[in-house]
Amino acid sequence: MTDVFPVLRVLGMLVMLFALAMGVPLAVSWYSQDGVWQVYPLSMAVTLLVGAALVLGLRNYRRELQPRHGVMLVSLVWALLPLFATLPLMLACYQVGRPMSFTHAYFEAVSGLTTTGSTVLANLDTLPVSVNVWRTFMQWIGGMGILILAVAVLPMLGVGGSQLFKAEAAGPVKDTKLTPRMTETAKGLWGVYALFSAGCALAYWLGGMSPLDALMHMFSTVSLGGLSSHDASFGYFASPLLEGIALFFMLLASCNFALYFVAMRKGHWQGFWRDPEMRATLVALLGGGLCVAVLLWAKGIYEPLQALRHGVFHMVSVATTTGYATVDYLAWPVFAPVLMLMLSGVATSAGSTGGGIKMVRMLILVKQARRELTRLVHPNVVQPVRLGGAVVENRMIFSVMAFMLVYGGTVIVLSMLLLLTDMEPLTAFSAVIASVNCMGPGLGSVGPASNYGVLTDFQLWVCTLGMLLGRLEILSFMALLTPAFWRR
Amino acid sequence: MTDVFPVLRVLGMLVMLFALAMGVPLAVSWYSQDGVWQVYPLSMAVTLLVGAALVLGLRNYRRELQPRHGVMLVSLVWALLPLFATLPLMLACYQVGRPMSFTHAYFEAVSGLTTTGSTVLANLDTLPVSVNVWRTFMQWIGGMGILILAVAVLPMLGVGGSQLFKAEAAGPVKDTKLTPRMTETAKGLWGVYALFSAGCALAYWLGGMSPLDALMHMFSTVSLGGLSSHDASFGYFASPLLEGIALFFMLLASCNFALYFVAMRKGHWQGFWRDPEMRATLVALLGGGLCVAVLLWAKGIYEPLQALRHGVFHMVSVATTTGYATVDYLAWPVFAPVLMLMLSGVATSAGSTGGGIKMVRMLILVKQARRELTRLVHPNVVQPVRLGGAVVENRMIFSVMAFMLVYGGTVIVLSMLLLLTDMEPLTAFSAVIASVNCMGPGLGSVGPASNYGVLTDFQLWVCTLGMLLGRLEILSFMALLTPAFWRR
Ligand SMILES: [K+]
Ligand SMILES: [K+]
Repeated sequence: MTDVFPVLRVLGMLVMLFALAMGVPLAVSWYSQDGVWQVYPLSMAVTLLVGAALVLGLRNYRRELQPRHGVMLVSLVWALLPLFATLPLMLACYQVGRPMSFTHAYFEAVSGLTTTGSTVLANLDTLPVSVNVWRTFMQWIGGMGILILAVAVLPMLGVGGSQLFKAEAAGPVKDTKLTPRMTETAKGLWGVYALFSAGCALAYWLGGMSPLDALMHMFSTVSLGGLSSHDASFGYFASPLLEGIALFFMLLASCNFALYFVAMRKGHWQGFWRDPEMRATLVALLGGGLCVAVLLWAKGIYEPLQALRHGVFHMVSVATTTGYATVDYLAWPVFAPVLMLMLSGVATSAGSTGGGIKMVRMLILVKQARRELTRLVHPNVVQPVRLGGAVVENRMIFSVMAFMLVYGGTVIVLSMLLLLTDMEPLTAFSAVIASVNCMGPGLGSVGPASNYGVLTDFQLWVCTLGMLLGRLEILSFMALLTPAFWRR
Repeated sequence: MTDVFPVLRVLGMLVMLFALAMGVPLAVSWYSQDGVWQVYPLSMAVTLLVGAALVLGLRNYRRELQPRHGVMLVSLVWALLPLFATLPLMLACYQVGRPMSFTHAYFEAVSGLTTTGSTVLANLDTLPVSVNVWRTFMQWIGGMGILILAVAVLPMLGVGGSQLFKAEAAGPVKDTKLTPRMTETAKGLWGVYALFSAGCALAYWLGGMSPLDALMHMFSTVSLGGLSSHDASFGYFASPLLEGIALFFMLLASCNFALYFVAMRKGHWQGFWRDPEMRATLVALLGGGLCVAVLLWAKGIYEPLQALRHGVFHMVSVATTTGYATVDYLAWPVFAPVLMLMLSGVATSAGSTGGGIKMVRMLILVKQARRELTRLVHPNVVQPVRLGGAVVENRMIFSVMAFMLVYGGTVIVLSMLLLLTDMEPLTAFSAVIASVNCMGPGLGSVGPASNYGVLTDFQLWVCTLGMLLGRLEILSFMALLTPAFWRR
């Protein structure tokens, strides 16, 4: 049992860091006079207090963490930080006379931090602006990963970061081509992220958004989060220019940030352009977008240019797991939204801010399947699986396979739980897939023109669990359930 | 090109054998005087002629077959035999004034031979009885596999059988624990099949069916085919006794026939009862049945005993990929039919007459995933994957993984094709899953109380392709598409 104490001590530090993050909506609240500024110092105080209690109470458990601790910490962080995040949400909403239940607030907080971007709130435009800033800022924090931030910051506090980094970095290809010094890497990744963020906010502002809208939509664009301060989502702006800017930054954020970091450090981009995952991701996104555009045009829904605009924007938005919408795409021929939802499972890179299975896993599986087909015909030919010139170890293939099974199992079990509540199957499966992929809007009654407020509390908890499992890349969480984990 | 000639020669022999099979409906037609007996000699003549032309025309291409020939032959057999099977169907239906299009007839023939048991025909009860016998007899032939039959018979004709057997036997565990002499094995499997068939027909007849009904339902029970001569399917009999008999033989047929063969030859059954796949299959079927029964009772749909009767019967019927129904289970809480359909993917054994992924593949994947979870926590522990005491080779795991990917890809691509026709997603996905698993009825508008006649021709062809790919276990077919196949 004392085994968990060193983990809780580090958790305490993260909780304290998270309290500082509430300074952002506080500043906005002060500046914009939205009448709820008091809730932020209060929430910060409670959060800081809990964090400090953990750190001080467990000051004797200062140890280098083991692999199992990384798994434990990452699970605790994603489950517990949203608890603190609910404080400003619930208090502010209460103060403006629109009280929010704990279930709704926790759902909203998890949806924010995991960059899912589903919402249970309606009438977003009339919420205090600092609440919308808080919702979208959580996405920005969650996008690059709280723990990668921690790795960048915590060494000053004397905590070794390698287990944190391994547990947090998305996708199977971890720390390849990166500097062996984790802290440097984490700082580098956050540097790239900050650069993109600055560029995106500036572009939105120059493109015509108000400064605060530019800030909030930057938060939810580069994190592929997709929350908006408007009920009409990105459709509020009705601007092809802004949609183009969003498109550009969504595509940028759907690639592996380590590629940018390495390219910038080396000063040349050959490695970037040759990366097979980056290429496959962009081909899937733009190819899928063209497919949808052609369908929309062929079925007579839009004129060619409008078909291209709406088809590509929504495909990229949904498949990068962002989830912005400018029109209700559920009114389109059903092929389009289903294709978009399917691609949201695969069309982001490992090391990006997106969710889902990640393209590199699909590439590995497809290449390995192709090898097996060859073996059916030429049983004695032995070929290794190669990706981008490098041999993929069997060990990696096995781990990808385990991930796929657990991913599929999670989707099925959670969907079956929703079906137990007599939910209509299309809504149930799409809500779970959209949650597990950290995408956001589903099909059926949780589509882009609706919101998750129509769900019952039990249904919301199932989706919340889906978002958490998806962000944890499931496997980490599942490891908690194995007996081997609890045996020393 | 001449490479395909030895394959076509063997195909000719199989076509001639298939012509003989039409003798069964011919005999029934004569005996029962259903007025369409003339169509059978005509169909037989055409089929025999084509087969003989192939055999005689290619008599100089008598060679031992290579692995690639096995793949080619098995694909050709499953695609072409249904062509000949359409002859009696179309002729007899035309003669009684209910003409059938070629698309419908080919769908019906593929549905028969692949043991899927979907139908486009309504008013089955008023069809000439020999037509229903032909439909169900095709399932019986397809159940154990036309090619395994061929392996048992063809050696007399001078054709080596090992490549046929490998290409046909279902599931990844091929010819384990079986006699090395393929012909003996194939004969043994057919022996077990014949024994079960005799027992099942006798039990149905003693249980109250008419002799012809007993024959036809035996055909579609032991093959896990599920076609019936009644629109009300098994519900026509309204007999708990007959449902119990069907339940017993469906459970029997969902296990690996090689287990029975080996146990009978050895005279002891320890190996049978210890087989992990058999146990997992039965646990899934009966456990799933109990789940559904409890749900039906808890939601107040039925009294406890009726809930047990209907829950277990339909779970076993659907999940063994049989597809009999006694009530319209789409009226149940949606959890039940979806669970049943999901389990139809996994709840049959390799070497059984059922379709789908097969339980052994799931067991291998689950055990390998469990190993990976352990590795997350203890990265340096190396364990082999074990199944039933034996180590599962990496090679086998890779092949299972490739199968799963191709299976999933097939389901998605075919479903997306249906969605392109603006079909409602639940109907589209369930129709494809039910087809690929060789199960039969789906959800939505292709449920047990409806039939596939509501689909357009294009939609039927998509389902037909799904049935063929599912019966071929997909991988064999995919091999045809690889460049390596066509390179010598
Ligand atoms: K999102
Ligand atoms: K069937």
